Amino acid sequence: MNKIAVWGFAWVPPFAQGLVRDLRVRWALEEAGLSYESRWVGIEERGSDAYRRKHPFGLVPVLESDAGALIESGAIVYAIAEHCEALMPHDQRAKTLAWMFAALNTVELPVWNLFVIDLLHQDEAWAKLRRPGAVEEVKVRLSALSEWLGDRDYLLDGFTAADILMTTALRFIRHTDLLAEFPRLDAYVQRCEARPAFQAALRNQMADYAHNVPVAT
Amino acid sequence: MNKIAVWGFAWVPPFAQGLVRDLRVRWALEEAGLSYESRWVGIEERGSDAYRRKHPFGLVPVLESDAGALIESGAIVYAIAEHCEALMPHDQRAKTLAWMFAALNTVELPVWNLFVIDLLHQDEAWAKLRRPGAVEEVKVRLSALSEWLGDRDYLLDGFTAADILMTTALRFIRHTDLLAEFPRLDAYVQRCEARPAFQAALRNQMADYAHNVPVAT
Repeated sequence: MNKIAVWGFAWVPPFAQGLVRDLRVRWALEEAGLSYESRWVGIEERGSDAYRRKHPFGLVPVLESDAGALIESGAIVYAIAEHCEALMPHDQRAKTLAWMFAALNTVELPVWNLFVIDLLHQDEAWAKLRRPGAVEEVKVRLSALSEWLGDRDYLLDGFTAADILMTTALRFIRHTDLLAEFPRLDAYVQRCEARPAFQAALRNQMADYAHNVPVAT
Repeated sequence: MNKIAVWGFAWVPPFAQGLVRDLRVRWALEEAGLSYESRWVGIEERGSDAYRRKHPFGLVPVLESDAGALIESGAIVYAIAEHCEALMPHDQRAKTLAWMFAALNTVELPVWNLFVIDLLHQDEAWAKLRRPGAVEEVKVRLSALSEWLGDRDYLLDGFTAADILMTTALRFIRHTDLLAEFPRLDAYVQRCEARPAFQAALRNQMADYAHNVPVAT
């Protein structure tokens, strides 16, 4: 994979900075030691015909390289990991992919639901009524995940692509104290976020937003 | 892959029959011409320590075979498809996986949200207030998906593992008229569901539920 470009939003409001899904791709590329360039789509342009030709749903990320274009953070991270033994041992591909889907479906469904309630609809009556149940649904998943981790440092034997997706999925509830109720899980996320590759990815995403910050009108 | 067993719930209420995620695995196995046996966990036993050793989140499906055990319908279907050119052409793996993640994350998030509102919380005040917005979020995805399909019969050049996941994700809104608003998408789902392998998978899941129907007390 060469001549890599990663599409993200040019700028997002602070509540979403550090959460947009191109972060996952940046992180995987940093872990794999692959350099890339950022490409930006304005959040208001994502539905345009031109951008829809890159991404049918008008979302980010899109990865472009000499190997072609690819959508969906899960699939992009998997494609990067396929060429990087450190992100996915060859004999652990099926298990790694299982935990990647666990992150983006089993865990992200309830976690994203709570993010939507708290950050996108916080002033609406339904959100206040729904919140306690949504919190319980998150806790069910966090509890199971914490139990799975036990004394493990990572989801599988060593750090893998699945940890990239799980950590970034769990970041959608960074505005709550829920992770702190599960010390093993809290320590796990901190362990993953302490990796130099994550720090570099986050720094680069934030630098792009700083570069593109809207001018006050 | 030999000596295959697929874990599903012993029985679920009618509103969930034909939706539980072991259907995806059964379908992929039928398409691949692989035989399997059903294994059942009672829906009330799924949180038990014994079952948690099979599935950390207490969910279904689990695939067991001579190659080991695997969780997450997406990862299981991918593992089956890796050995079946008809489900995933070798040179289309990355694109197929992208559409598998699109099905289980980009599409399933809003679609599952509406399923939860309508089938699990239909009598609650928040659900009534939330529903119109949730419907709009589903339509945004259905519209984009319909546009992507255009005159295509399937998501990619021919039927693949991604169509199994997309079709079964879209079944979570079978109780609504939403698909009918997008005739191409509606025809796509009907085209996929008309496949003999889907029909066999559904028949076998329903037969298991009939076999395990709770005795009235």
